[in-house]
Amino acid sequence: MPDHNQEQAPQRTDVNELGEFGLISHLTQGFPLRNPSSLKGIGDDAAVIDNGGLLTVVSTDLLVEGIHFDLMYSPLKHLGYKSVVVNLSDIYAMNAQPKQVTVSIALSNRFSVEALDELYAGIRAACDYYQVDLVGGDTTSSPRGLLISVTAIGQGERDKLAYRNGARVGDLVCITGNLGAAYLGLQILEREKQLYLSDPAIKPELEGHDYLIGRILKPEARKDMIEMFAKNQLAPTAMIDVSDGLSSDLFHICEQSGVGAFIEESGVPIHPDAQLQALEFKLDPITCALSGGEDYELLFTISPDDIDKVKYLPDIYIAGEIVPAREGVHLHTRGGNIHPIEAQGWKHFGSSNREKGEG
Amino acid sequence: MPDHNQEQAPQRTDVNELGEFGLISHLTQGFPLRNPSSLKGIGDDAAVIDNGGLLTVVSTDLLVEGIHFDLMYSPLKHLGYKSVVVNLSDIYAMNAQPKQVTVSIALSNRFSVEALDELYAGIRAACDYYQVDLVGGDTTSSPRGLLISVTAIGQGERDKLAYRNGARVGDLVCITGNLGAAYLGLQILEREKQLYLSDPAIKPELEGHDYLIGRILKPEARKDMIEMFAKNQLAPTAMIDVSDGLSSDLFHICEQSGVGAFIEESGVPIHPDAQLQALEFKLDPITCALSGGEDYELLFTISPDDIDKVKYLPDIYIAGEIVPAREGVHLHTRGGNIHPIEAQGWKHFGSSNREKGEG
Repeated sequence: MPDHNQEQAPQRTDVNELGEFGLISHLTQGFPLRNPSSLKGIGDDAAVIDNGGLLTVVSTDLLVEGIHFDLMYSPLKHLGYKSVVVNLSDIYAMNAQPKQVTVSIALSNRFSVEALDELYAGIRAACDYYQVDLVGGDTTSSPRGLLISVTAIGQGERDKLAYRNGARVGDLVCITGNLGAAYLGLQILEREKQLYLSDPAIKPELEGHDYLIGRILKPEARKDMIEMFAKNQLAPTAMIDVSDGLSSDLFHICEQSGVGAFIEESGVPIHPDAQLQALEFKLDPITCALSGGEDYELLFTISPDDIDKVKYLPDIYIAGEIVPAREGVHLHTRGGNIHPIEAQGWKHFGSSNREKGEG
Repeated sequence: MPDHNQEQAPQRTDVNELGEFGLISHLTQGFPLRNPSSLKGIGDDAAVIDNGGLLTVVSTDLLVEGIHFDLMYSPLKHLGYKSVVVNLSDIYAMNAQPKQVTVSIALSNRFSVEALDELYAGIRAACDYYQVDLVGGDTTSSPRGLLISVTAIGQGERDKLAYRNGARVGDLVCITGNLGAAYLGLQILEREKQLYLSDPAIKPELEGHDYLIGRILKPEARKDMIEMFAKNQLAPTAMIDVSDGLSSDLFHICEQSGVGAFIEESGVPIHPDAQLQALEFKLDPITCALSGGEDYELLFTISPDDIDKVKYLPDIYIAGEIVPAREGVHLHTRGGNIHPIEAQGWKHFGSSNREKGEG
């Protein structure tokens, strides 16, 4: 009888059991690519389509109120800007140039036209700065909250696109800018929000935190890097944008390239403000860089032959090396210890806030 | 002083004041197209991108639980199927072939992996039937409800694409299949839902309504028509898919082409089941066809020179003619009356259900 019951009962697996990456791979298995124009499907920063000329590169993201943003501290204009930028970042991470975006929004009746104007002012600012065209979208109502879905479309040259699967043993691991700052900015905003909620008379103390808060509320995509790569004829062997944190994103490259890697703690760039703030929160700065996410910097690998090209370019840091898969993915700490690095997608279904970057 | 106050008070315009089309045009003004690859931006069924080979055609839609679908009567598998089909329909309405889709979902923790499997089984069935590839997406949590964002990408030949702005005076207005059935199917489902909610002992009476209910829950896109156009070397001068209802969609063509039109009531195809059901609901069948929406049939115009090509093709109906703009957009009824036809987007912000098609 219990057996019979087991057969009858509809199974209910919580999505958290699979985790983000597990869920995506579970849902998208059994979707073969059958059109010759579909060069690259699921599993990279963007899909790649060949319609006979330059390759078309497509990436899409959902931003959900209460999950990816909190309107209590995120101005609508910044939110509009960020919703475009995070998608452009995916196109740059393919070593391609974004050219078009579509923006769809679902919104409840608590949003006025003036509020939407703010949101679109941010979208427009991003389109202006990155020189991309808004070419479509959908606008609809929602029973509750605001949701923004952006698709970015870019173009790239066939032999220049950088996938996640191109890293080879001996390649150098490089990071642009600095990591961990966006996460620390978010922690400051969350702290001040909690204080404000406990006592609305308390004025938020955000002064002196402009850099960290700017990194979470109004990130930029590394368009400049892609242009510098082209100018210096530097072709990354693999590339990804750091949206989930260095750990997860390095893991993606290693998994898809069938390699391992080590990262030197001393080689991971961390902004002085982030260093200080991490200590104030009693956090290890390298942990913020590894797990924080939302920095939208580029993580890429280059052939060792290109080391001289990278050495003299500003804002690029050599952080480690690609090794055989059997050696795993590790962090070499300043103290001489070796720690395994693990991928961490979200596991946040049902929680009211998400601490990490996009899926 | 009142003047001063007026300056100070932040203005709050309800989005309903602008309506769907007004809101879209309000929000998207000031977004110029500056990339040579952006051939067509906002305002057609899909955007058109030129990366040097075949043109890339892109369309996107949001489906929101409680607005576009009701899981009380919409099986998840059908919903997955429909979410893909409504986007493919936009690509076909450009006289192009869909080749890829991206699917993003935001879902609350009330959805299990098994529920998602059902949704993706429908998505897979649509990909199989229409031979398109799933190439990307985003999966994230939502504080409440399910939201599906689909972007369809297709390819088309430069001189074959059918825009909304190509209708010329003297062109014939054609409609495929039949109109109004999806709307009537929805009314049946809503009626049975209300009865069930008032007394759960009442069994829904859906028998005999397979056709109408199928039209709303599992619509198909007119891939067959696009193939027939190619085979018969028929090039529509303008085309749109009927998602908002004949009124709105004809209005879009007229507005963008700078023309007027008349439709003969007797020329609008309506399925016998829809005729009967409309009468049962005490509705005029032609009203259902004009305002119902979600039929995903094609509304297109052809040069009068092509009349013989259309006359002998199955499932295409000549319903009217394009006239000068000053003559307006009108319906000629069977009774010999002339009624103006007006565009009707949604005005449903804040309502819990939307009776009309996508934006």
